[in-house]
Amino acid sequence: MKDKILECVPNFSEGKDREIIERIVEPFRRVEGVKLLDYSADIDHNRLVVTVIGDPDGLKESLLDAMEVAVREIDMNSHRGEHPRMGAVDVVPFIPVKNVTIDEAIELSNQVARQAARRFNLPIYMYENSATAPERQNLANIRKGQFEGFSEKIRLPEWKPDYGPSEIHKTAGVTAIGARMPLVAFNVNLDTHKLDIANAIAKKIRNSGGGLRFCKAIGVSLKEKEMVQVSMNMTDYTRTSLYQSFEMIKMEARRYGVNVVGSELVGILPMQALTDVAAYYLGLENFCEEQILENRLLWED
Amino acid sequence: MKDKILECVPNFSEGKDREIIERIVEPFRRVEGVKLLDYSADIDHNRLVVTVIGDPDGLKESLLDAMEVAVREIDMNSHRGEHPRMGAVDVVPFIPVKNVTIDEAIELSNQVARQAARRFNLPIYMYENSATAPERQNLANIRKGQFEGFSEKIRLPEWKPDYGPSEIHKTAGVTAIGARMPLVAFNVNLDTHKLDIANAIAKKIRNSGGGLRFCKAIGVSLKEKEMVQVSMNMTDYTRTSLYQSFEMIKMEARRYGVNVVGSELVGILPMQALTDVAAYYLGLENFCEEQILENRLLWED
Repeated sequence: MKDKILECVPNFSEGKDREIIERIVEPFRRVEGVKLLDYSADIDHNRLVVTVIGDPDGLKESLLDAMEVAVREIDMNSHRGEHPRMGAVDVVPFIPVKNVTIDEAIELSNQVARQAARRFNLPIYMYENSATAPERQNLANIRKGQFEGFSEKIRLPEWKPDYGPSEIHKTAGVTAIGARMPLVAFNVNLDTHKLDIANAIAKKIRNSGGGLRFCKAIGVSLKEKEMVQVSMNMTDYTRTSLYQSFEMIKMEARRYGVNVVGSELVGILPMQALTDVAAYYLGLENFCEEQILENRLLWED
Repeated sequence: MKDKILECVPNFSEGKDREIIERIVEPFRRVEGVKLLDYSADIDHNRLVVTVIGDPDGLKESLLDAMEVAVREIDMNSHRGEHPRMGAVDVVPFIPVKNVTIDEAIELSNQVARQAARRFNLPIYMYENSATAPERQNLANIRKGQFEGFSEKIRLPEWKPDYGPSEIHKTAGVTAIGARMPLVAFNVNLDTHKLDIANAIAKKIRNSGGGLRFCKAIGVSLKEKEMVQVSMNMTDYTRTSLYQSFEMIKMEARRYGVNVVGSELVGILPMQALTDVAAYYLGLENFCEEQILENRLLWED
């Protein structure tokens, strides 16, 4: 059986008290099958962002334990910070990384939400791909009104929580949980300084303009380089491939007599987004991700 | 600091006794910083092949401990098996996987050889990239005469061991240790059934024919597919890239009016061999292997 790996980036509303922060993070260090990649507390935002990766069972267990600490130790009534927030456990996104479909991530997000609602008597909204209504997809929409406004908002029929009671947790507020695909930030450079060309190409290749389904794109000026760039967010690299947007930009650039001169990937991306590119250009047949040595090093015990 | 990872595939001359085999393998389970990927004992060959991966320190420690068990418990005087062999620890190749140069692997192989020779009073030959003379590069050359012939061979001046005494270990014989690059087996299919075309292209692109430095190639018939193939061993993918051989085959195929119709990768390969391909075709600038999520999961604790 192939290992299933997801990433989870829970946000907790505590950015100052190192002891509470360490107690929240502890389950991600302790539980088998998960790996704490990063956690950073921001004093101004008064918020803790944890990046953890692991198999579904390990993530579920560690996350519920961390939520328990946050619900017990954070009092939103005395919480001040610059970042909008509505609960002690503010938001919990699950992101498929390997051998996990978005549907499996949605299922996991619902399992966690159901158990957390019961265990902590916490109202929970499902968001992004887990949303139960279009107006719940966007986190900002859910979070509007913040902790202080939620005692009222939660009583509106259209804002009845997906799990848990229809009133806020007195100290921990409410929580949003959901699944979403990882974003891949991919920029392609053109040998022109004309921003309108980059914008025209961006419009043609992106979903909203009639282009690729899982591609968002805008034109951007690179002042130091005297170039422009088509700057993209690939919102599901498993269905819209990087090479598709790259080749489509080359194709569009031709009509302006412009050339693609390079590209860049910004930040972290799953390996598959790149092996997919290599497999396309080499015309690889029967290639399997398990042939990659590094894939054999992950949770193989 | 970036994690350094190597693979090591030691061969031990015991393929039958499960208890001895488990004792040899135990250090690879126990020592921190190494991961036992596979071990298989072949009764006919009477040989145990271990695949282990890890950082230099962990590999050194676990390997020396495993060698100690093998030297103590295997008596080559009573060893029978179909595979050529010359010692209880027959051969130990070190293979760079990540953030390790071949020179560092050579250095590690010499450290292990020096310590093993001293600790077990064992004669050791350095082979492949670690060889101290051209006739010692090829393992088959060193191994000629096998255990039974080595009492005499080892006294010849040209076969003085690189480390340890100039006589065989009475029960453990002699050992070969060395460093080599991983091989990547890469085949490219052509839409013709004419083997002479595949052979002509293979000859043109391989090192021995004046082509790419780290590329071995032959023509092969694919009977079921009614196609031919240029079958390659890429002997250093960090210096001769997969896309170089692929593009060069396309270029050569053109003169015969033949097309490349696909390719295949056989067996295991390091991720870098593929990210290199993706980076070339997308013209990626400033791409760094650490941007790949999976790279953050390896020995990060």
